[in-house]
Amino acid sequence: MIETRTETDSLGAIEVPAGSYWGAQTQRSLENFKIGGEKMPAPLIRALALQKKCAALANMELGLLGEAKGKAIIKAAGEIISGKMLDQFPLVVWQTGSGTQSNMNANEVIAGRANEILTGTRGGKEPVHPNDDVNKGQSSNDSFPTAMSLAAALQVEERLIPTLVHFMHHLKKKSDEFASIVKIGRTHTQDATPVTLGQEFSGYQRQMELGLARLQDSLPRVMELAQGGTAVGTGLNAHPDFARLFVENINRETGFSFTSAKNKFEAIAAHDALVELSGVLNVIATGCMKIANDIRFLASGPRSGLGELILPANEPGSSIMPGKVNPTQCEALTQVAAQVMGNHVAVTVAGAGGHFELNAFKPVIIYNVLQSIRLLTDACLSFTDNCLVGIEANEERITELLEQSLMLVTALNPHIGYDNAAKIAKKAHAEKITLREAAQDLGLVTAEEFDQWVNPKKMV
Amino acid sequence: MIETRTETDSLGAIEVPAGSYWGAQTQRSLENFKIGGEKMPAPLIRALALQKKCAALANMELGLLGEAKGKAIIKAAGEIISGKMLDQFPLVVWQTGSGTQSNMNANEVIAGRANEILTGTRGGKEPVHPNDDVNKGQSSNDSFPTAMSLAAALQVEERLIPTLVHFMHHLKKKSDEFASIVKIGRTHTQDATPVTLGQEFSGYQRQMELGLARLQDSLPRVMELAQGGTAVGTGLNAHPDFARLFVENINRETGFSFTSAKNKFEAIAAHDALVELSGVLNVIATGCMKIANDIRFLASGPRSGLGELILPANEPGSSIMPGKVNPTQCEALTQVAAQVMGNHVAVTVAGAGGHFELNAFKPVIIYNVLQSIRLLTDACLSFTDNCLVGIEANEERITELLEQSLMLVTALNPHIGYDNAAKIAKKAHAEKITLREAAQDLGLVTAEEFDQWVNPKKMV
Amino acid sequence: MIETRTETDSLGAIEVPAGSYWGAQTQRSLENFKIGGEKMPAPLIRALALQKKCAALANMELGLLGEAKGKAIIKAAGEIISGKMLDQFPLVVWQTGSGTQSNMNANEVIAGRANEILTGTRGGKEPVHPNDDVNKGQSSNDSFPTAMSLAAALQVEERLIPTLVHFMHHLKKKSDEFASIVKIGRTHTQDATPVTLGQEFSGYQRQMELGLARLQDSLPRVMELAQGGTAVGTGLNAHPDFARLFVENINRETGFSFTSAKNKFEAIAAHDALVELSGVLNVIATGCMKIANDIRFLASGPRSGLGELILPANEPGSSIMPGKVNPTQCEALTQVAAQVMGNHVAVTVAGAGGHFELNAFKPVIIYNVLQSIRLLTDACLSFTDNCLVGIEANEERITELLEQSLMLVTALNPHIGYDNAAKIAKKAHAEKITLREAAQDLGLVTAEEFDQWVNPKKMV
Amino acid sequence: MIETRTETDSLGAIEVPAGSYWGAQTQRSLENFKIGGEKMPAPLIRALALQKKCAALANMELGLLGEAKGKAIIKAAGEIISGKMLDQFPLVVWQTGSGTQSNMNANEVIAGRANEILTGTRGGKEPVHPNDDVNKGQSSNDSFPTAMSLAAALQVEERLIPTLVHFMHHLKKKSDEFASIVKIGRTHTQDATPVTLGQEFSGYQRQMELGLARLQDSLPRVMELAQGGTAVGTGLNAHPDFARLFVENINRETGFSFTSAKNKFEAIAAHDALVELSGVLNVIATGCMKIANDIRFLASGPRSGLGELILPANEPGSSIMPGKVNPTQCEALTQVAAQVMGNHVAVTVAGAGGHFELNAFKPVIIYNVLQSIRLLTDACLSFTDNCLVGIEANEERITELLEQSLMLVTALNPHIGYDNAAKIAKKAHAEKITLREAAQDLGLVTAEEFDQWVNPKKMV
Repeated sequence: MIETRTETDSLGAIEVPAGSYWGAQTQRSLENFKIGGEKMPAPLIRALALQKKCAALANMELGLLGEAKGKAIIKAAGEIISGKMLDQFPLVVWQTGSGTQSNMNANEVIAGRANEILTGTRGGKEPVHPNDDVNKGQSSNDSFPTAMSLAAALQVEERLIPTLVHFMHHLKKKSDEFASIVKIGRTHTQDATPVTLGQEFSGYQRQMELGLARLQDSLPRVMELAQGGTAVGTGLNAHPDFARLFVENINRETGFSFTSAKNKFEAIAAHDALVELSGVLNVIATGCMKIANDIRFLASGPRSGLGELILPANEPGSSIMPGKVNPTQCEALTQVAAQVMGNHVAVTVAGAGGHFELNAFKPVIIYNVLQSIRLLTDACLSFTDNCLVGIEANEERITELLEQSLMLVTALNPHIGYDNAAKIAKKAHAEKITLREAAQDLGLVTAEEFDQWVNPKKMV
Repeated sequence: MIETRTETDSLGAIEVPAGSYWGAQTQRSLENFKIGGEKMPAPLIRALALQKKCAALANMELGLLGEAKGKAIIKAAGEIISGKMLDQFPLVVWQTGSGTQSNMNANEVIAGRANEILTGTRGGKEPVHPNDDVNKGQSSNDSFPTAMSLAAALQVEERLIPTLVHFMHHLKKKSDEFASIVKIGRTHTQDATPVTLGQEFSGYQRQMELGLARLQDSLPRVMELAQGGTAVGTGLNAHPDFARLFVENINRETGFSFTSAKNKFEAIAAHDALVELSGVLNVIATGCMKIANDIRFLASGPRSGLGELILPANEPGSSIMPGKVNPTQCEALTQVAAQVMGNHVAVTVAGAGGHFELNAFKPVIIYNVLQSIRLLTDACLSFTDNCLVGIEANEERITELLEQSLMLVTALNPHIGYDNAAKIAKKAHAEKITLREAAQDLGLVTAEEFDQWVNPKKMV
Repeated sequence: MIETRTETDSLGAIEVPAGSYWGAQTQRSLENFKIGGEKMPAPLIRALALQKKCAALANMELGLLGEAKGKAIIKAAGEIISGKMLDQFPLVVWQTGSGTQSNMNANEVIAGRANEILTGTRGGKEPVHPNDDVNKGQSSNDSFPTAMSLAAALQVEERLIPTLVHFMHHLKKKSDEFASIVKIGRTHTQDATPVTLGQEFSGYQRQMELGLARLQDSLPRVMELAQGGTAVGTGLNAHPDFARLFVENINRETGFSFTSAKNKFEAIAAHDALVELSGVLNVIATGCMKIANDIRFLASGPRSGLGELILPANEPGSSIMPGKVNPTQCEALTQVAAQVMGNHVAVTVAGAGGHFELNAFKPVIIYNVLQSIRLLTDACLSFTDNCLVGIEANEERITELLEQSLMLVTALNPHIGYDNAAKIAKKAHAEKITLREAAQDLGLVTAEEFDQWVNPKKMV
Repeated sequence: MIETRTETDSLGAIEVPAGSYWGAQTQRSLENFKIGGEKMPAPLIRALALQKKCAALANMELGLLGEAKGKAIIKAAGEIISGKMLDQFPLVVWQTGSGTQSNMNANEVIAGRANEILTGTRGGKEPVHPNDDVNKGQSSNDSFPTAMSLAAALQVEERLIPTLVHFMHHLKKKSDEFASIVKIGRTHTQDATPVTLGQEFSGYQRQMELGLARLQDSLPRVMELAQGGTAVGTGLNAHPDFARLFVENINRETGFSFTSAKNKFEAIAAHDALVELSGVLNVIATGCMKIANDIRFLASGPRSGLGELILPANEPGSSIMPGKVNPTQCEALTQVAAQVMGNHVAVTVAGAGGHFELNAFKPVIIYNVLQSIRLLTDACLSFTDNCLVGIEANEERITELLEQSLMLVTALNPHIGYDNAAKIAKKAHAEKITLREAAQDLGLVTAEEFDQWVNPKKMV
């Protein structure tokens, strides 16, 4: 038997574990929503605590919250922000669509801890009340979306963007390192005119560079905060200056430039900004899929594939085939890409599902957005550090594949025209001879002309 | 100035083109829904006409529709079924969500043509009335979903299934043809233990065989018809025997085994059966994506790729690279697969969007389902006839790639253990020598043992 | 400093925590794949252990594995199946695409525990070797997909199907309970002809009934096991009778009817069966979305909505609006539905991404399929027990809304024709009078006729 | 028998219809790709002609193309841009993944028409050659993506943006018109604190305003042109100044600010910019779904729904229920939204599917992007003009619903605390009395205080 204490809410009394800081509403949610194992993500919990802290600061500045209570609330919230007490947030994602239960979880735990600070007794509503003090001037309907915006923006700013910069930096390094390695290009998966290996990597780098630009463009919209709208966007029960002071405190705490949403009705009833952000993550995922696919094919072999790249061998590849090494970092990255694409559809469906003054799919939206951010961050970091930095070019193989290519014939177009050049390529292919031989046999180009015009190094 | 005549509906009078058979409601839709260029698909129009014909037959059997009117309706509907008068169905997909406007288009055109048959005067509501006669005992809410079921099932039965059988047949033929060609297997895109080329094609064949089984399993649910439910599923204004007689006539006309939906409320308010069918098309699309991707990689080259397969050269591949031949049928098939995957999401979102007694996303659902069916049918047929049947194995290349593979070492596991086998493979790879040489150098296997144990032909 | 011991694999030596059962390959994966927080799901781990147990049984029957080793393997695997040692499976989903690292995790932990049983010393490769004994006759490439099939099928059979039966049962009970409550129907969200509340619930029940049929149809394909194909489908290094004996043992252990995949190449290179299963879960999700949406709208209010249903009040609904009660179970269910739709796209992209002899998206596929199964199971159970069973009809409100409806006019169609009936409805609407009054004013129907023909109870 | 003439390409001779301008490669595609009915969209065809015109201008400036040939090419291209000769572009979307066949279609038709201008004889390769002259300095691989960028950007700039501005303008007008209508707010579909009807519409307006900002942010990346990269991004066979001159001509012709892609490898091998644009269209679609859903629910009735809005009656709503009027424009808009969401997945899958130097899903990408742009444009325009502008508020009904709401109790929180306010609401609900009565009965608030504190007009 676990020891309990009694807490109450507007539905009556309920027993909660004696050691917990949470109260009645958290407990009801725990009992009523035994769905899945996915807890509300930690960055969202910390963002909720940050939201409560800055709300308390604003309310204190407005003279609406006394100093003793205010300081206790701020201390309690600060502990959560610093990563403590995450075990006090046991609720799952699959709960009420406004996130009210997690907002109340935060209100209750902060009140419960503040009361402990002030009185030595954990929990309860005295002197600090979860609704009237911690949630003062707030509703779940503006607090929870504010925490969503905070969590998403901070994870992008503090984790994803630095990782993509790191990824891009190493793509650039490889692009420079491989700048003079001329190799066969491939279009339609088929032999084409030459490129340098560095040029290939420059394309990957550009994808990530543009991905970063996309993120940057989307952030100002993500950083519009709903706080101050309270229940339906009108700001009922919040002081007219509350929203402004709240955002000032947020920016002081975080060092970023969040803004108060221009239209609070939109900010509560829709989550278009997170659908947009998810769409940007989706673009980055398509880029990761392309890059990882290319690299695993270019590194295919070791003997019977394309074999142009050599990847680091981080672990044995097969439980049955001895000595096999697989492009495992590519595989993790492509799997993450598939997940991000799926998550984006979940976010889209959820983002389109709002009714009237509220979108009631908030938890599933932020769960997916945060998962996508984390997976892309972690997988790009793992890919960069465990694969990309160690990639080597197999120059011998690259040169062998380049020299036998028929598509070098393209360089003849300006001299003899497309139709004649095509005849040379087809003859060389059919008779398994070199282009040079075919060109001479057909009398279309002399050997000297051929050597002068068909020079892979000049074709890149 | 186009010549017009006046038609009326419950909103009043409106001018329609004098030459048209349609009436007021079709005309209003034309004017109010200038959205996109996608007309309601022809198979759906023909299914609507079939639905009207069988409804008339049932009403005649019930004595609710006189013989003269009934015969005229049947003749008019028959003309549409046979492919005539498709130009009388000008409405786009993006209209009322019940398809009422297209149902009324069918009612009006059939009435307009029946009146012409009976009186010599095109259009109007006399003697045959679009609602009271052609739509007798029906509502758009049961007629349109019935037409959706008919159109989808008939296109699957008459076009997609025969095409997949044809596709599978030729995959089987290739599997047989290539049964004795031993080649390197590839897992993780990397060299692995051998397979036969025939085994690879047998996997493709099995994917299509299972795809067919999936289609067959889903069809009975698609073939449950909503007809008889009228407006909300209760069957108000329809004779109690109407639904049964209707289905009997449908089966007589088509030769298939449609049934009357067990629960008409579900059949009108949800389209789960089409979401399911779309999901099966989605599975087939993933199979097509896999097969086409494999084939274009196996045929990559001609000189600097894997080069194991030779595809038919149907057209010049490049506007700039002379002599280039590309896997264009693979590309068309993979693009169709991507479309089917996207369509499936549209169908899912639409299928989930019903409210109360009606799903009001009917046109977008059937548009996507029919597009997916047609694209898969046409693309699989084109791929089979223009690519698959002409695929040749490049046996010389296949043997070359097989013989140099390190993964043949796997055959040594049962004799010397995984760890020792791994040492051989790693040594051969590092020193660019053969497995046989490495095995002997390490003293783990004699040359005789190696030759006896490592035999690719025995490894498949 | 954590105490360690040294383990080795083909890449060399590595330190692992002394207390762990796992070995070198698990440790390498832990270090190389710090991606996300999603561990390989428990049902998959238990399925892998079941797979190892039945493989050992088959190998013992074939005389390929000695009794002492075999029994120790079986005991170790049994402990995992029973839910012990889940902490020995620390690897995340985002790893090698074949699941090799988790397969090796199972091989290593089972060997490590078997060695402890046999020698008292935890870990290592003696006397029981992770590859040569635990993985005997197997590859990750057939073992991991076998575990995927086992995990998915068992979760469907043991959890999802019973839950959907329970859900359906309670929908049926409500349908019976509400069978005589005549209410307004709604199409296009607008007033329509009457239905009973029981009929509405019968539609929901039918959706779930058909969902169950879909699941049943898909299971035989999910239950085809890849085991016996080893690395590429050829069965290299597995005894010819191994696959058959393996499946016999699986069926003995589980009581279900798994089969050996007819074509092992397909079973390793594609996961169409799981894409199909995910598609069925997607259909069920669309049904849940529809049902939950209906119920929250029908229960909207309490005073300014439709108000036809009364939902149980399980928790306070708002942190700012006192006394508010929200349809939270509906919201959890719709959020789960959105997630399942998103997961389905991840599964589709992953399922389409295989190359040659292997689909290297296995972990992301099974992660999503198992999450979808669990979420649908838990959410449908929570919805049924915490909402559905307690739903009450607000009969007073239902009758009030029914009686004022204009769509009762539809009952007049067969008597006075659609156009005249429309005139009555329009007049009543415009003048805010009753249909009965409008009908008489227009002289189209007498009061007696009206009362005889327009009877909502007869219209359902 | 249709009359033909003989045309040739590198595969040999082929008969084309004598009256056509196209040549051998177009004809081969026609015969080899009988897939679906979706022709390459007209905006893409016109963009290809614009691309050819500006390429000719650049080549003339560079002295690489003689004046006679150049002028003929420009005249021919100009005819296509102006909308003529669309019937000369018979190819379907489902063709080679580079769009080579449609690029050659343009090259051939322009050469064929230029030759007619210069010689009086239609078709052929003399004096103007499709590859050597019309395609000079170009490849399909840079020309087709350039046309994709042109088509998408021009359709957004010229059609979608003005339409969204128009939509937003009318949402603003309604917001102003309804600014003083106080009504019940709804969260979780349940009664909540008041808002004005104007505030609700301001939220919709803000969604579209932000949607426009998203479009504007994405356009610079869409407007990066691949031209000049030729086959693989290196620019082989194009003059070094060609790309710059080309873009100058494009901007002169269109009046917009296209740029030359900073990295041509990325611009050919990836279509992230179109995936991003599709993502923005997806966000706009979620907004449209929300708005249209809200409006159809707010307008539900006329007698048994929420009934707060009155929509224009554009057409009869039902083929069986006389006098029914449905929210058909909402339905068209939501169906379009579902389609755009599906298209976005097709674009994502296709965008992720590139290999090496080329993304070979170009046609399916541009098909979906252009369809999404057109459908959103047309549907938003139709919705605005046929529904939004005519929406009226049912003020009598709105006031009735507001006054009976229990959520007005929220205004008491700051005065008596959340817990006491909850008691009042619960009592009023249970006893079906007013809040004012319940407040007095409980002795928590006097009648005077109640009237002073609970004033809906002050709560917005």
